[in-house]
Amino acid sequence: MSSTVFTENDPFSPIRYGYTIKKMLYSHKGPFGEIAIAEHDYFGRMLILDGVVQLTEWDEHFYHEMLAHVPMHMHPGPKHILIIGGGDGGTLREVLKHKSVVRATMAEIDRGVIDAATRFLPSLSTGFSDPRTKVQITDGAKLVADSRNAFDVVLVDCTDPIGPALSLFSDQFFSDVHAALKPDGIFVAQTESLHFHVDFVKEVQNKLKENFTFVDLYTVPIATYAGNWWTFSIGSKTVSPRKTAPRKVSGITTRYYARDVHRNSFLVPSLCRKLLG
Amino acid sequence: MSSTVFTENDPFSPIRYGYTIKKMLYSHKGPFGEIAIAEHDYFGRMLILDGVVQLTEWDEHFYHEMLAHVPMHMHPGPKHILIIGGGDGGTLREVLKHKSVVRATMAEIDRGVIDAATRFLPSLSTGFSDPRTKVQITDGAKLVADSRNAFDVVLVDCTDPIGPALSLFSDQFFSDVHAALKPDGIFVAQTESLHFHVDFVKEVQNKLKENFTFVDLYTVPIATYAGNWWTFSIGSKTVSPRKTAPRKVSGITTRYYARDVHRNSFLVPSLCRKLLG
Repeated sequence: MSSTVFTENDPFSPIRYGYTIKKMLYSHKGPFGEIAIAEHDYFGRMLILDGVVQLTEWDEHFYHEMLAHVPMHMHPGPKHILIIGGGDGGTLREVLKHKSVVRATMAEIDRGVIDAATRFLPSLSTGFSDPRTKVQITDGAKLVADSRNAFDVVLVDCTDPIGPALSLFSDQFFSDVHAALKPDGIFVAQTESLHFHVDFVKEVQNKLKENFTFVDLYTVPIATYAGNWWTFSIGSKTVSPRKTAPRKVSGITTRYYARDVHRNSFLVPSLCRKLLG
Repeated sequence: MSSTVFTENDPFSPIRYGYTIKKMLYSHKGPFGEIAIAEHDYFGRMLILDGVVQLTEWDEHFYHEMLAHVPMHMHPGPKHILIIGGGDGGTLREVLKHKSVVRATMAEIDRGVIDAATRFLPSLSTGFSDPRTKVQITDGAKLVADSRNAFDVVLVDCTDPIGPALSLFSDQFFSDVHAALKPDGIFVAQTESLHFHVDFVKEVQNKLKENFTFVDLYTVPIATYAGNWWTFSIGSKTVSPRKTAPRKVSGITTRYYARDVHRNSFLVPSLCRKLLG
């Protein structure tokens, strides 16, 4: 089979990323958009939603490890975790590495993503069969609005902030997340690139500051997300993100995350002032 | 004039970067390859050599500031500087911000790049008219081989390591650079992406270790270089890169570089072990 060039259709990027695809393994148009799985010689399997690359087997660990392990190592004893989105299973896989976890709830709006990941991304979807996992096919914003004092850590692992993901960045949502968290709860959301979306990052940081005692930003370099220099915005009720040493947790194997990576990932003060001030 | 899509022809990248060009301002095929200047709505003017983006006005400061200011703030009093390549003038502009500089020599093999920058990139080419600047149209590797105990800082600001740039990464070159540096001299070269070229980075680090007392690696996230997570390899005779606090230098204005950025840019120990060990 001859290879074809797939060009990403990312309205948030001034660069068009092109990939030489060896084989398109799966493509399905569902109620929330098109789900595709492609095979690439360098990147392995790729999950593509509505023409935008969500992950590649080659570098998904940078994103999933940093989204999960920074808050999981900050919280003194994370037991009840909520993942909003994340239907590929990558964030769930990382969360479940923590033995403290009693229940990991995933609120994924699109069952089709979970099905595609279960079938085509075995290295990501390992957590779906874990007895601590509870998958709910629902709008995460609604689940959060209906929860009180329920979670130690809430993670937003979503697509770009358009369509279904838009409600996950509203004032109401952040207020609801605060109420859904326990008194020492921590919230983290992926918030796009500091290169291409600094206004969006700033907007989310400001909204979080209206709800949380501590608000901060940490980053990871990701080759396959346009603009790279990817950000995670953090809101915390009592634990200071920057001043809290990451806990030593035994038995966790990671490829990128480490305690020095954790400490080094927070945006330095001079750039916080220049870019977010 | 209608816009056209320019797709980068980068043999070192598994992703093809595409840019919607508003206007091609200049294109010239010279003895060292094709030099082009394009205008882009988002990135401003772009310098493209042999089909590969070398810089954009929008983000060139990330690269040039980090290449120049990390060694310039480490060295106790940098007076004599050699820049190899860098015909666009960006690195020269940053070096000349240091009042300690007596002479900044630029060894650029391709006069056409300097001419194009002077004509089309006024915000980069400011340093060519500085009385401390000495431009030599020559092969930097040859100039280094003919120099002894001459420079405080040597910087390699080159294209990808093929063609003319290949000689700047040989054992012989690193040995010659060591001899061309004064007793407390510092050498820095751009060494591609930790995502896409980790074997190359490791190879350069190992070659440097054969010549320099201190060898280290620092990074910067660059949106327009494929693989981003860009690396600079450093070889130093007496000044420890990681343990030396960056000097306080007054009167220097930068957009990305700062002393906390400097300190934070060195690759953390766990990743040094995993990626370079």
